[in-house]
Amino acid sequence: MGPGLIEELAAISDAAAPAVTRVVFTGTDLRARAFLTGLCVEAGLTVRADAVGNTFARWSGSDPGLPAVATGSHVDAIPNAGAYDGTVGVLGGLEAIRRLRRDGFTPRRSIELIIFTAEEPTRFGIGCLGSRLLSGTLDEPTAARLWDADGRSLDEVRTAAGFTGPLSSVRLEPGSYHAFVELHIEQGPLLEQQGLDIGAVIAIAAPASLRVRIGGSGGHAGAMLMPERHDALLAAAEIALAVERAALATGSIDTVATTGVCQVFPGAVNSVPSRATLEIDVRDVDGTRRDAVLTAIRQAADATAVRRGVTVTLEPINADPPAACAPDIVDTIIQACDRRGLRHQRMISRAYHDSLFMSRIAPTAMIFIPCRGGVSHRPDEYASPDQIARGVDVLADTLLELST
Amino acid sequence: MGPGLIEELAAISDAAAPAVTRVVFTGTDLRARAFLTGLCVEAGLTVRADAVGNTFARWSGSDPGLPAVATGSHVDAIPNAGAYDGTVGVLGGLEAIRRLRRDGFTPRRSIELIIFTAEEPTRFGIGCLGSRLLSGTLDEPTAARLWDADGRSLDEVRTAAGFTGPLSSVRLEPGSYHAFVELHIEQGPLLEQQGLDIGAVIAIAAPASLRVRIGGSGGHAGAMLMPERHDALLAAAEIALAVERAALATGSIDTVATTGVCQVFPGAVNSVPSRATLEIDVRDVDGTRRDAVLTAIRQAADATAVRRGVTVTLEPINADPPAACAPDIVDTIIQACDRRGLRHQRMISRAYHDSLFMSRIAPTAMIFIPCRGGVSHRPDEYASPDQIARGVDVLADTLLELST
Repeated sequence: MGPGLIEELAAISDAAAPAVTRVVFTGTDLRARAFLTGLCVEAGLTVRADAVGNTFARWSGSDPGLPAVATGSHVDAIPNAGAYDGTVGVLGGLEAIRRLRRDGFTPRRSIELIIFTAEEPTRFGIGCLGSRLLSGTLDEPTAARLWDADGRSLDEVRTAAGFTGPLSSVRLEPGSYHAFVELHIEQGPLLEQQGLDIGAVIAIAAPASLRVRIGGSGGHAGAMLMPERHDALLAAAEIALAVERAALATGSIDTVATTGVCQVFPGAVNSVPSRATLEIDVRDVDGTRRDAVLTAIRQAADATAVRRGVTVTLEPINADPPAACAPDIVDTIIQACDRRGLRHQRMISRAYHDSLFMSRIAPTAMIFIPCRGGVSHRPDEYASPDQIARGVDVLADTLLELST
Repeated sequence: MGPGLIEELAAISDAAAPAVTRVVFTGTDLRARAFLTGLCVEAGLTVRADAVGNTFARWSGSDPGLPAVATGSHVDAIPNAGAYDGTVGVLGGLEAIRRLRRDGFTPRRSIELIIFTAEEPTRFGIGCLGSRLLSGTLDEPTAARLWDADGRSLDEVRTAAGFTGPLSSVRLEPGSYHAFVELHIEQGPLLEQQGLDIGAVIAIAAPASLRVRIGGSGGHAGAMLMPERHDALLAAAEIALAVERAALATGSIDTVATTGVCQVFPGAVNSVPSRATLEIDVRDVDGTRRDAVLTAIRQAADATAVRRGVTVTLEPINADPPAACAPDIVDTIIQACDRRGLRHQRMISRAYHDSLFMSRIAPTAMIFIPCRGGVSHRPDEYASPDQIARGVDVLADTLLELST
């Protein structure tokens, strides 16, 4: 990969280094896109963007009518994240394509790099916005009703960012791609702990998220007596703790549940909270077990509502089924590792990715590389140049094989 | 009181009616100040502001060298508050002065209306900023180190708002005022429940507030396994619930404790919270009992820190002693009620007020009027024109008596 590209991209950020904040359709996000588009054009690729900003950089094959082979990932980053989540798949995908071109390879199928819009749910509360629309997983009327915390609609902000046209034009039919392969950091500790170079992902865990809105009654913190209170924050606190208990109660290491967002209204030290909003994320490789955790959370929330005399409404944000990767692409990845003498294993992705949705319209697999301490979504997220280079090697070999 | 003045002032707000948001040194706060200064000048008063924006409107007495009699309150409002907290004391104080002037009364002592800066802690985390500085309760080096959530210092924002000069110039010596009397809504249900017109406040409850900073370790909500987590929000949830338990454990109706602020970092649905901040408010009419609640909170926070492997630091924001009101002013208030046939009682103020700090430099008392349902710090806060008029009557009589 070009020296320093990860660092150059990380510097396009709304947080002070080493933290990276890059929220979809902000000026920073648009600057990052422009940086990448420039690299793609310099690499000889033909770039187009769709109505939601998904960006496609194509290297035409010798038989351009055939469905293309695609790779890619995202470049948006949650507040105060790191430099590697998503970007390794975009810059690594570009590097794999440049390498194949430099090596004089002529693909039969076209090869495309895809930069997906808003894999992170930061702005619109829903992850994988671009790949959901691309795969028809999110319908256009629902997407048209999405809005951000400032009350601006998706349509308003995408249009302001220069991405116009009907959202319905984003959707691609199954069969549009011959294959999709995403390079990504593991975001977990397993590869590092076992001293492995590559994880060949065979399935992506099923994520579910929900928003909990709590309505109590506010008042002056000095004057409102304790027995009169229906404190929305205390109800939220009980529910957040119940989320943790529900995940631990499955007894499986594969169940995780997180309350990542807790907003309190009015949010003044001398005011009893009248409203609170939680956002909760539950994942498991077993969809049934995950749904049991959601049921336990719902029951705990209902019990809190009754006990505290507050209203609690649970609104599912998403609840996607897990995805299985395409066995023949997984085999291709493993063969590439073996040829290059890299240590590898087949594994599950606990995090979700655009691959989860691309798998609905194309045979899909993922290549994982280790990241230090398994840390992700933090400024100290790190993968070494050597680790990234090995991922790019395997990706390039896989794209070559699939596009021949 | 001039018809509609409460409503006119309430319309100067950063929230949609009926909610009022007026945070110190915002454009909205400055517009409200300008509106009031205009009213004071029209009433024939001489206006000055000090370096922190406390504003003094003076009616010179026949013996202007004597310490003046003062009344007043604040006009800043927490986010989504109501129209009566503070403003009844400012507009009602002005109305009392206008009435005395209209009636041809000539005071021996000057009478002053004071509009205090930032009674609410919204912006700088500390309540009664203006009256603390005025009374020497807050020293200037500490005040100079205050900053808001956007990282702007008190000095920067007061200067930008046009209030310049050293903060040390704000302080007034004990004896500067002969008396201070504040008219205010009760912000509690007692007067309404007992069908009373006026509360003569004999003491102001002792408020204490503290900020709790929790440091855990963040990570990706899908990839970070439950046993690896040190979730800052879950620690915060336990501490918020412990705050409630500590208040209830005293067994006294006079103990209240509130967690009004809970901020989570990074605050993304798919990210394990790495940091959280709570702001906690504890009050009691008994200072010893209040301090026992603070100790219980501290112990619970320490236990959570150990159990969850997070760091917890508690930073006192303030812990002021309760104030006793001046018995002779209380008597004057009661006599005014009796002369006018108003139903009244002596009572405690559970909320704190600028009077708490004015009592350090001047004999001080407060006049409470009922507010509907005891509700305050909410858009549905309400006191009727008749209730306000009775408060103004008693205030005018009291100012007359004290300034003669």
